[in-house]
Amino acid sequence: MKTLRSYLCGAWVEGNGVAQTLVNPATEEPLAEIAAAPVDWARAVTHARTRGGEALRALTFAERGQLVKAISKLIHGHRDELIALAIANGGNTRGDAKFDIDGAAGTLAAYGEVGIALGKTKFLVDGEAAQLTRSVRFVGQHIAVPRRGVAVHINAFNFPAWGMMEKAAVALLAGVPVITKPATSTALVAARMMELVVESKILPDGALSFVAGGVGDLLAQLDGQDVLAFTGSSDTGQMLRAQKNVVAQSVRVNVEADSLNAAVLGRDLDRESEGYSLFIADVLREMTQKTGQKCTAIRRVLVPESMLEAVREDLGERLSAIKVGDPAREDVGMGPVATKKQLEDVRAGIARLREEADSLIGGDGSVAEAIGVPKGKGFFVAPVLLQVRDAKSARRVHEHEVFGPVATIIPYSGDADEAIAQVARGGGSLVSSVYSDDRAFLGEMAFGLAAHNGRLFLGSSKLAGHAVGPGTVLPQLVHGGPGRAGGGEELGSLRGLAFYLQRTAVAGDKPILEALFHKKPEDAA
Amino acid sequence: MKTLRSYLCGAWVEGNGVAQTLVNPATEEPLAEIAAAPVDWARAVTHARTRGGEALRALTFAERGQLVKAISKLIHGHRDELIALAIANGGNTRGDAKFDIDGAAGTLAAYGEVGIALGKTKFLVDGEAAQLTRSVRFVGQHIAVPRRGVAVHINAFNFPAWGMMEKAAVALLAGVPVITKPATSTALVAARMMELVVESKILPDGALSFVAGGVGDLLAQLDGQDVLAFTGSSDTGQMLRAQKNVVAQSVRVNVEADSLNAAVLGRDLDRESEGYSLFIADVLREMTQKTGQKCTAIRRVLVPESMLEAVREDLGERLSAIKVGDPAREDVGMGPVATKKQLEDVRAGIARLREEADSLIGGDGSVAEAIGVPKGKGFFVAPVLLQVRDAKSARRVHEHEVFGPVATIIPYSGDADEAIAQVARGGGSLVSSVYSDDRAFLGEMAFGLAAHNGRLFLGSSKLAGHAVGPGTVLPQLVHGGPGRAGGGEELGSLRGLAFYLQRTAVAGDKPILEALFHKKPEDAA
Repeated sequence: MKTLRSYLCGAWVEGNGVAQTLVNPATEEPLAEIAAAPVDWARAVTHARTRGGEALRALTFAERGQLVKAISKLIHGHRDELIALAIANGGNTRGDAKFDIDGAAGTLAAYGEVGIALGKTKFLVDGEAAQLTRSVRFVGQHIAVPRRGVAVHINAFNFPAWGMMEKAAVALLAGVPVITKPATSTALVAARMMELVVESKILPDGALSFVAGGVGDLLAQLDGQDVLAFTGSSDTGQMLRAQKNVVAQSVRVNVEADSLNAAVLGRDLDRESEGYSLFIADVLREMTQKTGQKCTAIRRVLVPESMLEAVREDLGERLSAIKVGDPAREDVGMGPVATKKQLEDVRAGIARLREEADSLIGGDGSVAEAIGVPKGKGFFVAPVLLQVRDAKSARRVHEHEVFGPVATIIPYSGDADEAIAQVARGGGSLVSSVYSDDRAFLGEMAFGLAAHNGRLFLGSSKLAGHAVGPGTVLPQLVHGGPGRAGGGEELGSLRGLAFYLQRTAVAGDKPILEALFHKKPEDAA
Repeated sequence: MKTLRSYLCGAWVEGNGVAQTLVNPATEEPLAEIAAAPVDWARAVTHARTRGGEALRALTFAERGQLVKAISKLIHGHRDELIALAIANGGNTRGDAKFDIDGAAGTLAAYGEVGIALGKTKFLVDGEAAQLTRSVRFVGQHIAVPRRGVAVHINAFNFPAWGMMEKAAVALLAGVPVITKPATSTALVAARMMELVVESKILPDGALSFVAGGVGDLLAQLDGQDVLAFTGSSDTGQMLRAQKNVVAQSVRVNVEADSLNAAVLGRDLDRESEGYSLFIADVLREMTQKTGQKCTAIRRVLVPESMLEAVREDLGERLSAIKVGDPAREDVGMGPVATKKQLEDVRAGIARLREEADSLIGGDGSVAEAIGVPKGKGFFVAPVLLQVRDAKSARRVHEHEVFGPVATIIPYSGDADEAIAQVARGGGSLVSSVYSDDRAFLGEMAFGLAAHNGRLFLGSSKLAGHAVGPGTVLPQLVHGGPGRAGGGEELGSLRGLAFYLQRTAVAGDKPILEALFHKKPEDAA
């Protein structure tokens, strides 16, 4: 059986600790092993900071953009192989796997273009020069330069390809070397991508390191020039953020945690409208894509009382038609969750929700017989749609995220105020969506929801057929949300670079600052 | 004796705990008392969030700018009274007191203008709309709206006026209500400003609350819409940042900690040059203004070996001429430090520095006889200039900040690389300054130092007479620095608002987004 290795200090390192086995979550067949390696973390960090950091900082943004673009092409060139690994190790349908792997390649490509557009420069000019006192000579100019540290990336199990590459793309483009760690259970795709990157020799030595297994005392090595970006559970995010050395050294931390994202149907949309169809299609996709294991999945569905009957019928019919089983089969619409632990958590979570909600579809999530797998094998759960018994008093639906194909309907009057208050009870979300053709309602909702969400999706009839759903994270828009969602911010085109750069105000004599910072791109330092 | 009160839930609250006495640090004469009040912190936070937050959010940026500007005028109108309090309670000379109080009024005025320029809008548009897929209909637009929480501000003892108002100006302009807490020892100025603001009725109920004494379990009340901004010691900053509830709720935290700021003299400046005079004047001011109790004060002075003799002579002569004593007297150039505890810390810090540096001026900081105070009274320390014995091995000078009129010369070759490496050993600074007329040297230094500093000051001969020194924090430029400096960022004109706003990406149908977000200012929501 294959053993996944770490890549540190420019070499592959085999683990020698107690091994964990990676399995196919549909068949429980073992696929590979991971064991913690005996790593000198101080040395690994120093290698990345010095060899990797110096090499990356010697390049212009445009040159780094070319590297990132080349990695995109490399991933795309091995698309079929990576899709096969994602199906085997991730419980992904072919569609799920494409979403992850094309997402990785697409984000790399987008950031490659961002870098190329920035041109032959090694620093960014932030805003205009400002006169600081009454003298016209004394001015200040903000610039942004790469931090002289390493970026530690700790990723979630649900997007081994996209999660690794969306973070790496931004850090590398910013000129900061990366030490990336995938979640163990689904690490096959990430490990193969790392092999491809190493073999390709696209990146300079030290620019990208890879950790298979635990991170040991890696975080104790970080200092004020380093950054730590984490995607995953709120508990782990809190643990990382409160690490003694992370706090003591003012290490920059970005946390992207799962949240209770909401979809709100406006009362103006009738059952025949395209906006209504878009709503149904989006809820359906966000519930079942990746077996509901998406931090941006819709968990709460606000439906006007007048539309309850229709929504229950339309979602119910389509959810019931989804075939659960081995995602390697063409006829299967939804695979298993990623691990036995996830399955247990999802089943327990459904039970908690049912304390204040009724299952409309899927009961307790049991799957009598999954298609194409040996009886009793695999981590399967059925899509479960619930409805709260009392929208006013229900609490669990706003506080407990079930990370599987599970969503809960919350009936409401159709008034914007009521919907905003309900969404806000989630304590901060990555994304919420509103479906309506009533511009006044959309406006009220957008301004009312903005403080509680990192992203909003306004679905209207004319958008049907033109948009990707609210669950798709795009490189042009920020990703992250306040409160429960972790309070972080990634991507958003140039905005994502800020985390990896130091913004510095430079004050001085106007002609000197102009000469330093406003050269033509081709002459820039 | 006057007892300072808190202002919470729209009413003054008298303390009833064990009282602390505020004294005149020159004469040790008692001035006022502060005692912790029996506060229901949950209620205080709710009052600010609901009454204050709703009232502020109902205003446009321009209207909030007018409020902030009115507070500036109010402070300016009571300038003499506040200066007298600062001299009595802060150990400030008249110049020191003006620096603090005019800094408060000036920052408020600057942010008032920022708000007025933003116009009749309640949200900010962030960047251009971006097309998200192949369809021209589907676009994304970033906006920023006020967070629906409260801003808790915990300020340092050295700038009771400026510290309180620079933070309040930005939060109030952003539409976020403030609960502000001054350091107890020098709270008289802040308490008087609060009385003036309350009496003036400029602000809506709940917009500004004031805590005299401890904050109890205030931080345990905060959630993901709230923010916490702290200025002060690194230890307290770490303690606040790691608070369980702050971490659990993803409360946004900004820390501005003291740091080991550096001044670097270039080897091109001869003793007759204006650049050299600027350097000497800046070091002198940054060492002694506010008795060296400035987070931006120069602590490390890098001097080319060829210039050591001159710098030692010129700084020595001018430092020796400074009269230490009661700052209420016109002939006194430097007052005491703020408290007995500060004095003990400064004396202990000088002793630590002397383990690897020699005192050139001021010995161990003892003041034989302070002018105009009863013998043995007051927290006085003499200006102390040291020089490290071995620049290569010296560590304390880069790690231990002595928060008083103390700086240490570090000889260096004059090479930019060496100076950059030495400055970087400070582990992150708020500001560093470089003095040279050699543009190549200034450029090398600027790009080499940027990652390690929140702000840089490039002093050149032509700037003499036109600039304020590196220790002056200006509202147009960001304030804060990486690593040891706390990793925070305040001010910087519009940049400072980001901490108090939620940036949200809104995706949807192009004409709908245009109608929502690109109205003319006078029609905006």
